[in-house]
Amino acid sequence: MNKRDLLYEGKAKRVYVTDNEDIVWIEYKDSATAFNGEKKAEIAGKGKLNNEITSLLFKMLQENGIQSHFLKKISTTEQIVQRVEIIPLEVIVRNYAAGSFSKRFGVEEGKLFDRPIVEFCLKNDTLGDPTITEDQIDVLHIASLEEIQHLKRKALAVNRVLSDFFRELGIRLVDFKLEFGKDFSGEILLADEISPDTCRLWDLKTNEKLDKDVFRHDLGNLTTAYETILERLGGKQHA
Amino acid sequence: MNKRDLLYEGKAKRVYVTDNEDIVWIEYKDSATAFNGEKKAEIAGKGKLNNEITSLLFKMLQENGIQSHFLKKISTTEQIVQRVEIIPLEVIVRNYAAGSFSKRFGVEEGKLFDRPIVEFCLKNDTLGDPTITEDQIDVLHIASLEEIQHLKRKALAVNRVLSDFFRELGIRLVDFKLEFGKDFSGEILLADEISPDTCRLWDLKTNEKLDKDVFRHDLGNLTTAYETILERLGGKQHA
Ligand SMILES: Nc1ncnc2c1ncn2[C@@H]1O[C@H](COP(=O)(O)OP(=O)(O)OP(=O)(O)O)[C@@H](O)[C@H]1O
Ligand SMILES: Nc1ncnc2c1ncn2[C@@H]1O[C@H](COP(=O)(O)OP(=O)(O)OP(=O)(O)O)[C@@H](O)[C@H]1O
Ligand SMILES: [Mg+2]
Ligand SMILES: [Mg+2]
Repeated sequence: MNKRDLLYEGKAKRVYVTDNEDIVWIEYKDSATAFNGEKKAEIAGKGKLNNEITSLLFKMLQENGIQSHFLKKISTTEQIVQRVEIIPLEVIVRNYAAGSFSKRFGVEEGKLFDRPIVEFCLKNDTLGDPTITEDQIDVLHIASLEEIQHLKRKALAVNRVLSDFFRELGIRLVDFKLEFGKDFSGEILLADEISPDTCRLWDLKTNEKLDKDVFRHDLGNLTTAYETILERLGGKQHA
Repeated sequence: MNKRDLLYEGKAKRVYVTDNEDIVWIEYKDSATAFNGEKKAEIAGKGKLNNEITSLLFKMLQENGIQSHFLKKISTTEQIVQRVEIIPLEVIVRNYAAGSFSKRFGVEEGKLFDRPIVEFCLKNDTLGDPTITEDQIDVLHIASLEEIQHLKRKALAVNRVLSDFFRELGIRLVDFKLEFGKDFSGEILLADEISPDTCRLWDLKTNEKLDKDVFRHDLGNLTTAYETILERLGGKQHA
């Protein structure tokens, strides 16, 4: 497997094509960004931590019957994954109120919902990733109503496995963001990353934040928080 | 029927209790407001126009099998209606892209959707009437999933009758906002108003705007626009 041209450079990762047109090479960067890119920093070691955590989580999900684009971690900061065409939606699952939900509806952070809910944002930096309803997604031809139901079901299945897994490690999965794409055959596959950049993870006992909110709101050292997550995942020996 | 204490003064109407606890007295004001109250003006005759138009439309809807709170127009600026407890949701129906939809998703105003869509905003001035999804409405206990489906079905039924009615008058019903409430028996009833304040109405041939956007975006004389609507409704003789 050889790395070829850079396909896309995002805020957190670089994506390269490879010899195999169905496989891309992802390099995790040390950049941290928040508020649609307004706040930025370079944080040494962040790329390694997220590559490690995402790899462990995708592996664990696969062992629990949840397929994804993930193929193999190939270095401390790199992994190879199945190439997909990303559906331009952020699929958000919330178990507890936090972040934009709390702000928008004036609900205290940490309030447990009766059931997990799924929300969508349109992945469009120019428009500021606006929230979008299922009917809006349909009439804008971003995904069909059937595909939307499929995304919701998949996201809730991920939530069930991920929530239980984190709970056993003493971590509350407050909310998280997923991305999905279509592979060469048109099948919808879980893609992108699952890391403290894309999840809200609170210590179950102290409610200490162990995710990107540490960076967003200057709550302490991001590396320390992400290392705590990796340690609880038992990833120390992999490092 | 006697008017008693002021129950509520909104931006466009005053609501009074009456001798009958199930009936309220609504007085349409001459105030125009936009952008969550940021833009304001007094426009002589506006209250009369909206009272007249709303009364005609609720009557027409009732003749077409769509019940509402409307009972009777009792003066040029006043009507009596069934008292309801308003469900704090703005129920928005869109046939064409316009306004916040166009801005949010970068879609040209006037684009026809494949089918009408329903959206919800939380009626909460402090929070700025944020958009809210069906699942969010449910977990926040604002309405049940069943009630939400009921509201959507009712809103689409109103849209069908209203769109056809306006089309015959040479007017395009672009989008509109409804409010619903629960009457004394707990039944959900269409309430509030249906007027150029709450609908986007464009001339079918010229696309001239004949609604509150005239005021929002300083496109001309509001009274002239609203009078055009009333004239086409055949309301001249009622005036
Ligand atoms: N399997 C995959 N195949 C192709 N592209 C992928 C795959 N998984 C993730 N991507 C895309 O690669 C990019 C990853 O970069 P990064 O996360 O840094 O992007 P970003 O800064 O969040 O920007 P964006 O708004 O595009 O997501 C994203 O656009 C993501 O959707
Ligand atoms: N049948 C009814 N019974 C009780 N209240 C009603 C009824 N119909 C409408 N209302 C309420 O009366 C008020 C009408 O006033 P107005 O339209 O001026 O309010 P507003 O400025 O739009 O403010 P709001 O944000 O409360 O709607 C609204 O709160 C509306 O929901
Ligand atoms: Mg990303
Ligand atoms: Mg109102």
